[in-house]
Amino acid sequence: MSNELPFGYQYSTVYAGIRKAAKDDLSLIVSEPAANGAAVFTRNLVAAAPVVLSRAHLKASRGKVRALLINAGNANCATRTGMKVAEATVKATAKLFACPPAQILPSSTGVIGVELDPRKITTALPALYAGLSTERFGDVARAIMTTDLVPKTAQANLDLSQGRIRIAGMTKGSGMIHPNMATTLGYILTDATISPKDCAAILKRATELSYNRLTVDGDTSTNDTVVLLANGASGVKPTPAELKQVADAITSVMKNLAAQIARDGEGAKKLVRVLVSGARSEHDANLIGRAIANSPLVKTAIAGSDANWGRIICAAGYSGAQFDPTQVDIYLQGKRVCKAGLAAPFDEPKLKARLDEKDVLIDLRIAGSGKGSAEFWTCDLTEGYIEINGSYRT
Amino acid sequence: MSNELPFGYQYSTVYAGIRKAAKDDLSLIVSEPAANGAAVFTRNLVAAAPVVLSRAHLKASRGKVRALLINAGNANCATRTGMKVAEATVKATAKLFACPPAQILPSSTGVIGVELDPRKITTALPALYAGLSTERFGDVARAIMTTDLVPKTAQANLDLSQGRIRIAGMTKGSGMIHPNMATTLGYILTDATISPKDCAAILKRATELSYNRLTVDGDTSTNDTVVLLANGASGVKPTPAELKQVADAITSVMKNLAAQIARDGEGAKKLVRVLVSGARSEHDANLIGRAIANSPLVKTAIAGSDANWGRIICAAGYSGAQFDPTQVDIYLQGKRVCKAGLAAPFDEPKLKARLDEKDVLIDLRIAGSGKGSAEFWTCDLTEGYIEINGSYRT
Repeated sequence: MSNELPFGYQYSTVYAGIRKAAKDDLSLIVSEPAANGAAVFTRNLVAAAPVVLSRAHLKASRGKVRALLINAGNANCATRTGMKVAEATVKATAKLFACPPAQILPSSTGVIGVELDPRKITTALPALYAGLSTERFGDVARAIMTTDLVPKTAQANLDLSQGRIRIAGMTKGSGMIHPNMATTLGYILTDATISPKDCAAILKRATELSYNRLTVDGDTSTNDTVVLLANGASGVKPTPAELKQVADAITSVMKNLAAQIARDGEGAKKLVRVLVSGARSEHDANLIGRAIANSPLVKTAIAGSDANWGRIICAAGYSGAQFDPTQVDIYLQGKRVCKAGLAAPFDEPKLKARLDEKDVLIDLRIAGSGKGSAEFWTCDLTEGYIEINGSYRT
Repeated sequence: MSNELPFGYQYSTVYAGIRKAAKDDLSLIVSEPAANGAAVFTRNLVAAAPVVLSRAHLKASRGKVRALLINAGNANCATRTGMKVAEATVKATAKLFACPPAQILPSSTGVIGVELDPRKITTALPALYAGLSTERFGDVARAIMTTDLVPKTAQANLDLSQGRIRIAGMTKGSGMIHPNMATTLGYILTDATISPKDCAAILKRATELSYNRLTVDGDTSTNDTVVLLANGASGVKPTPAELKQVADAITSVMKNLAAQIARDGEGAKKLVRVLVSGARSEHDANLIGRAIANSPLVKTAIAGSDANWGRIICAAGYSGAQFDPTQVDIYLQGKRVCKAGLAAPFDEPKLKARLDEKDVLIDLRIAGSGKGSAEFWTCDLTEGYIEINGSYRT
């Protein structure tokens, strides 16, 4: 049985002329009734106007969200009029729903430093409003794409004691060398009844285990935003015990979305999963996993199906984590290539063929009593990345 | 008048069959008399055997160095026999010069995790010894190359109160995305009389201002080594006041070498110089400069001659430094493209033509009273980088 979309949400998209290519670039997600919500935002010192405004709105509305207004093609960041544009477009949207502007959260993605004409958005609003439908979830997933090759969505349904709740998420973003430097937007919707406080706690932990395993702390784009909305339209309020189940389902939807971002890396041909175990602590495991996942030398080797484990142990070595290199085993596609820090014999042509697959697993295990483990996702690094990013602006 | 090479050094190279391509891969630099020396090594937890041995030798010999034995084609790292190989080849070399093994410093660069056959080196030693000449400085600069496209040398002569001293440096290494992940080897030779302690202090500061501006702290290859030798063969001992002059000349030779590494980045077509000024502190300026110089998005934009200053201010924003984005001006090739954090008008085709040049200057200035400044070097990021690194091992 396929998953149902969460109740109480409507979706719409139009082409407002913000990006050059005539693909829908303006989206609306509306909740009826207004949802409880939480969001995590970029930690970049240079934060785009919609990020600043969304943060203020969530505070002012005490976590009440009626609608999300999202544009692609312009980040509305580092411009003279950024905040005015965000405020004007949000105000016009609030009018449509007769709600306080603070219940509207804006997001933008695209080029930085180019003025965004608010009239493009306000002019398009009536058509956007007219197009609202409970069916157009996938249209929004497409309209928020920038360099993404495919739309990214994930769903889950959960049967609880009071009845069924539904979860649906969509995201955009392309895994890059530092994956987080492409703006990531994510919207997770559920029809369960969850308080704003619980929404915030669930989103924080789920983000830590999903998007942040794709992302270096503090090393983020100017516009990154992930929002969780819970509108209660199912009539189901999870019990405290069930809330843990709901959190796990949301986490798993978000992990699914994060892996899709990695797989859709700019120019990427392969999804690379990095597992680390046996580290001194979770913190150390994260350091090692992140260093491997971010290493351009590891990522180019994977692109070339080259079992170059020396680069993997080298990345672990400079990660800042403490460990004994002579205790390290490394497996590629389940095949041990490094044992106790040294070369292990393996069938080179056979492994090369396995590394040609679309899913590559790097598994670094430290022998001993360490309990720290981590999972990261990234992609291989190909010529395509350079082509895409060499002339993005022009 | 052209610079003279420092007195008292001899050089030799041979092809010992360590690398596949039949290009000289084994080098010797000998000082007569034994020089005072100092070295800086990788901070990677996974350090190659020659690094471990060189560190021990410098300590045991109290900074006396008779010869440097350098091989390319194999890093002698993460192998079963690494330390034995390093010890055996060093011992055989010491015999040639009838000196303690501790006066020989070995270096290796090349692939990690592949056993290095010591007989290849010991068998080649007689020919290497026979080939020694005061003239073959340039041959060694070529024989230590791996993915480098050109040999890299720099020289300076300085006339002091007691007479002339000579400085000559050579280096290998290719600026990468994280530039430091290619093994960097550097050898700076002078015929001035300098104590081991002064050598160490001079080298430390000069490295901080040159190689480390190409390199992220703690984010280094397994084999990185930079050595400074001072053999006194000029008969000139700088006065304490003149020692500062000598240090400046050595720093300037090393800056020259570091910039050559950036220019010779794998696949690089452009040398990118990053200047930061007006930061709260030198530390903050370093954070900003390093984030910009390491940003693959900035580096691909430069490759495409794209004046994408949004990526530059974004990198500054996630660098961890504290500053007010509305106080930031950014200049590309001397042309202001961002004023007070916002787009400044500029002639796009004109600037694009300027960005096509081989030397690109990114200059980020923070208005106000901050005194922190920094200079970094990097290269553009091109398709060539991926080609080179996708199949380095195989």
